[in-house]
Amino acid sequence: MDTELPAITCPADLKALPLEKLPELAEKIRQTLIQTLSQTGGHLGPNLGVVELTIALHRVFDTPKDRFVFDVAHQGYVHKMLTGRWDRIHTIRQHDGLNGFLLRTESEHDCYGAGHAGTALSAALGMATGRDLAGGDENVVCVAGDAAFTCGPVFEAMNNVAAHTKRLIVVLNDNEWSIDRNVGAIAKYFNSIATHPAYANLHQKAGKLLEFMLGEDARRIVKKVEDHAKNILLPQSQTPSNRSSLFDEFGIRYYGPIDGHNIPLLIQTFEFLKTQDEPVILHIITEKGRGYTPALNDPGKFHGLGKYSVETGETPSSDKPTYSQVFARSVTDFAKADPKIVAITGAMPGGTGLSVFKKEIPERYFDVGIAEEHAALFACGLATRGQKPFLTIYSTFMQRAFDMIVHDMAIQNLPVRLCMDRGGLSGDDGPTHHGLFDIAYLRGIPGLVHMQPRNEDEFVDMLWTMAGYEAGPIAIRYPRGNGPGVTPKDKPVRLEIGKAEVVADGNDVALVALGDMFPVAEEAKKELEAKGLSVALINPRWIKPLDMDCISTFARKVKVICTLEDHVLRNGFGAGVIEELSDAGIRTPVVRIGWPDQFIEHGTPSVLRKKHGLSVENTVAKIMAALGQ
Amino acid sequence: MDTELPAITCPADLKALPLEKLPELAEKIRQTLIQTLSQTGGHLGPNLGVVELTIALHRVFDTPKDRFVFDVAHQGYVHKMLTGRWDRIHTIRQHDGLNGFLLRTESEHDCYGAGHAGTALSAALGMATGRDLAGGDENVVCVAGDAAFTCGPVFEAMNNVAAHTKRLIVVLNDNEWSIDRNVGAIAKYFNSIATHPAYANLHQKAGKLLEFMLGEDARRIVKKVEDHAKNILLPQSQTPSNRSSLFDEFGIRYYGPIDGHNIPLLIQTFEFLKTQDEPVILHIITEKGRGYTPALNDPGKFHGLGKYSVETGETPSSDKPTYSQVFARSVTDFAKADPKIVAITGAMPGGTGLSVFKKEIPERYFDVGIAEEHAALFACGLATRGQKPFLTIYSTFMQRAFDMIVHDMAIQNLPVRLCMDRGGLSGDDGPTHHGLFDIAYLRGIPGLVHMQPRNEDEFVDMLWTMAGYEAGPIAIRYPRGNGPGVTPKDKPVRLEIGKAEVVADGNDVALVALGDMFPVAEEAKKELEAKGLSVALINPRWIKPLDMDCISTFARKVKVICTLEDHVLRNGFGAGVIEELSDAGIRTPVVRIGWPDQFIEHGTPSVLRKKHGLSVENTVAKIMAALGQ
Repeated sequence: MDTELPAITCPADLKALPLEKLPELAEKIRQTLIQTLSQTGGHLGPNLGVVELTIALHRVFDTPKDRFVFDVAHQGYVHKMLTGRWDRIHTIRQHDGLNGFLLRTESEHDCYGAGHAGTALSAALGMATGRDLAGGDENVVCVAGDAAFTCGPVFEAMNNVAAHTKRLIVVLNDNEWSIDRNVGAIAKYFNSIATHPAYANLHQKAGKLLEFMLGEDARRIVKKVEDHAKNILLPQSQTPSNRSSLFDEFGIRYYGPIDGHNIPLLIQTFEFLKTQDEPVILHIITEKGRGYTPALNDPGKFHGLGKYSVETGETPSSDKPTYSQVFARSVTDFAKADPKIVAITGAMPGGTGLSVFKKEIPERYFDVGIAEEHAALFACGLATRGQKPFLTIYSTFMQRAFDMIVHDMAIQNLPVRLCMDRGGLSGDDGPTHHGLFDIAYLRGIPGLVHMQPRNEDEFVDMLWTMAGYEAGPIAIRYPRGNGPGVTPKDKPVRLEIGKAEVVADGNDVALVALGDMFPVAEEAKKELEAKGLSVALINPRWIKPLDMDCISTFARKVKVICTLEDHVLRNGFGAGVIEELSDAGIRTPVVRIGWPDQFIEHGTPSVLRKKHGLSVENTVAKIMAALGQ
Repeated sequence: MDTELPAITCPADLKALPLEKLPELAEKIRQTLIQTLSQTGGHLGPNLGVVELTIALHRVFDTPKDRFVFDVAHQGYVHKMLTGRWDRIHTIRQHDGLNGFLLRTESEHDCYGAGHAGTALSAALGMATGRDLAGGDENVVCVAGDAAFTCGPVFEAMNNVAAHTKRLIVVLNDNEWSIDRNVGAIAKYFNSIATHPAYANLHQKAGKLLEFMLGEDARRIVKKVEDHAKNILLPQSQTPSNRSSLFDEFGIRYYGPIDGHNIPLLIQTFEFLKTQDEPVILHIITEKGRGYTPALNDPGKFHGLGKYSVETGETPSSDKPTYSQVFARSVTDFAKADPKIVAITGAMPGGTGLSVFKKEIPERYFDVGIAEEHAALFACGLATRGQKPFLTIYSTFMQRAFDMIVHDMAIQNLPVRLCMDRGGLSGDDGPTHHGLFDIAYLRGIPGLVHMQPRNEDEFVDMLWTMAGYEAGPIAIRYPRGNGPGVTPKDKPVRLEIGKAEVVADGNDVALVALGDMFPVAEEAKKELEAKGLSVALINPRWIKPLDMDCISTFARKVKVICTLEDHVLRNGFGAGVIEELSDAGIRTPVVRIGWPDQFIEHGTPSVLRKKHGLSVENTVAKIMAALGQ
């Protein structure tokens, strides 16, 4: 089959294909993705769902002049393949290879990058408004999943669309999933449209119409579609439930729902929509994981994953639990003994491990959708009633709730437990997902406690400490994936807030190694000792309050302090140590190991740590230089 | 008239009044507010609008058991007066007096504090859910203005309400205004309901019904209201436009609109609503500034203001322009010469001064509502098309856009100009409004330029520099109110990025004074010189990149460096100086003047600066101590 299709090296190649060849192209793309991602890992399910959509978009529109803004942009692999990157798709998510999302720097066809959800509609509206101001005629198309409509910014954008432009095309890619199954009233609303009996009838009508039209040339097709659009699409009051569409209330003309896997229908619909002089939204129904049974059977798992067997969909099993798994198991166990504990996630029961909590204590489990601001506020409301909320959000997504952490949580001293998974490098997801800023954005907030564990056992002690802490907001960051593999003891202990752990005494150098940098410090200690130096090793545990009694004591006796952190250096953990030592009038030199003042690309942690100096080698070298040796 | 009413010292006093006395109470509250705020300043307009609503709420519900969550909480003065604080209302917004918003620490009747918009619905939902989990029976009432419905978090919350509780009362206080006139599709939607002819008819019907019922006892009234509710209220498909309500799509039963100044109607409606076992929203129409002609004539001005003449509504005029006025004048002038410049505000044309831009260049002025996330993303979209967005948001509200600044602006290096008004202490607004964290949250972000001017002339040079800067995001913080009064020169100059201004050389002490702390440093310099010291004075201009050439040079020759900033010390400007000096291996002692690691209360800047050590006196004392003198 493949041999019959020419290589697609740019959108023009796609446009040159006969219309009837496009389903074949879709199948080829699908097989390439299934095979390739089994080796590289990646967002298989979302991309299998948008193959036909992406083909239709590139058939009708002309990037880079026209603008496609993909929300989250994890569904951009097909777009990459059709815009000159097919031959590099096997490098996706590999260091120096293609990014797993879209990047403006990767291709002129990528007009907007992302990684976090809910940004595309606003950005697209900005582009459309910019076009209108400049008198341009390019098309702007925003592609967003149904889960994006649980994000506040999308509604903020919807409120402004009609006031700011007359030409914007929004594609609502409805597959009923965010990363896990979508939640809330909006999901129900979409579902009520998509499952209405009228939808099935419409398919048949549309099919017949298309059969009739396929022989016609493009201009005539457009004309016919315009004439007949009202028969195949469902604007305004003709929605199945015979009520006005939510989008119409926002001044965005609603069309749909249509089958998002029907290429000719999509093409003709876009030809029609691009002639409209009002903002429009096209509701398409797609299957996440389309064409690959294992992905259809387990869309949550196949949203994004590592290597898998093409035949079975099986992924390599790990013998030790991830930090996320340790987290979820512990908090669920705590909650069984303490009816005040509740768990909150933003559409991440799988990623955070909280599916365990959901299964075992469903009445105290709250998935609020991709809505970090609401999640934080909801947690505050619960905390005012004596509940103990564990607000579990990746470090990078907690950025969305920053104002609520200051304004609602910290000012009011509400005991919300901020559990920041993926605190530190996120690896192959790249710069949009690295959790490298949470110390910088949290340390300035008065009264907020912040910590990081060095292994799984200490992690559980910290979570247990958080469960019992009622004095105000308290945060923990923990890394993606596995820890060193220290099995938690049977019964956790409460740690003293602000008390560091001195692992080894020493007189020449003191290593203060936060969290997952602790093993690097252990290795560095050995190498420094091999050079005849006496090396202290401190596990600070607490980012704030810092154990200045401990650190000052060592700072007064050693020649060099070295801090290590999986965080940017600017306004990071080591910067805090320097700041507090300065206030204490202690001027011992401080060497710092951490991420530099630049966005870190994607790649494996080992490659990136070595490249950017978070290595044993660089730690030893910098300390020796500071010692003047 | 006053003498006939007993003092209201708690909600029970209100409940003891005969129903027919309540309009008199409303009038008394209104006159007290008009008289009192003419001396203290404050949010007059919003409070005049909710007098009857607040009376009705306290008549029907029982705080502190029942929970009132007021969105933004600037409309909480009447609530304060009715809950034991009438005798202290004259201290509002004064240091050591009542806070201008609600504070959990001020009264047991204040179950949730605020200051930023759009948080109440989520917090109330958390409280309702906490109640349901605990098996409680208290009522939770959320009061939010129509402007809150331009905020994303409110939609995130709406998406979750129906899934999480069956008992929640939301009051939509619709006055068509945020701080300035409300914008967008939602505002139009509300207006389409409120202006429908059916609304007038309903008033008449409701009036007759009430007249009939007023003689009845309370239980019978409730029964009757239940029976007749469908006649006076408008649930679901009976909305005037005969279409389903937006709220019904979210699973929240819509009632209204009703007159928000009709106390008996409000009371009976709340009696009815509190018996409902589904989430409900009551749409009330109120007048911002009700009962005071100057406030009705200029609701924007009377939203929040300082002292005014009760007779005329006139406020004292100032002879020099505020920073906001200098900002708006300059950017508007730049935009006249450069068609690429656009201005974006989040419902703050008055506060930011941008009403000038709106008036003179309306086609490039964008008020997006209280929607800082969307505002930032919209700016990013515009920037990708070569527009030059000036995104103008108070420092404290820019916290909402933090994730977008990292994820969309900085990672993509998009030249958005972040103009942060009220950077530094906000004074009488208190902790929710102080802009004391922006250095902490921005300095860790790679590639972001950040600056602060020391006077109006330098401010315009900086704005001009931003206008011409295309390399990435660039931020400026500037204080509330007036600067030192330096008239900008005729033609601004472009400043060199990262280049400090050395104002005076010296050998003993170097003062590095950021922005509005410069005058403090000037005074301190004089006092130190009077003690025989040689004092250098540096205006750093750039927070990032810091001029380390300059600062290192002085650090190497002086005995003490002293940084001064209108920002928290933790992760602040001085912390950055310490961090960079440490990296450069320079260990000159650094004394820092700035806000301590606690939330700062409300009060005038001079009182608060003195109290917390941002004074000339403390600066000199700390430097002398560091010099060992």
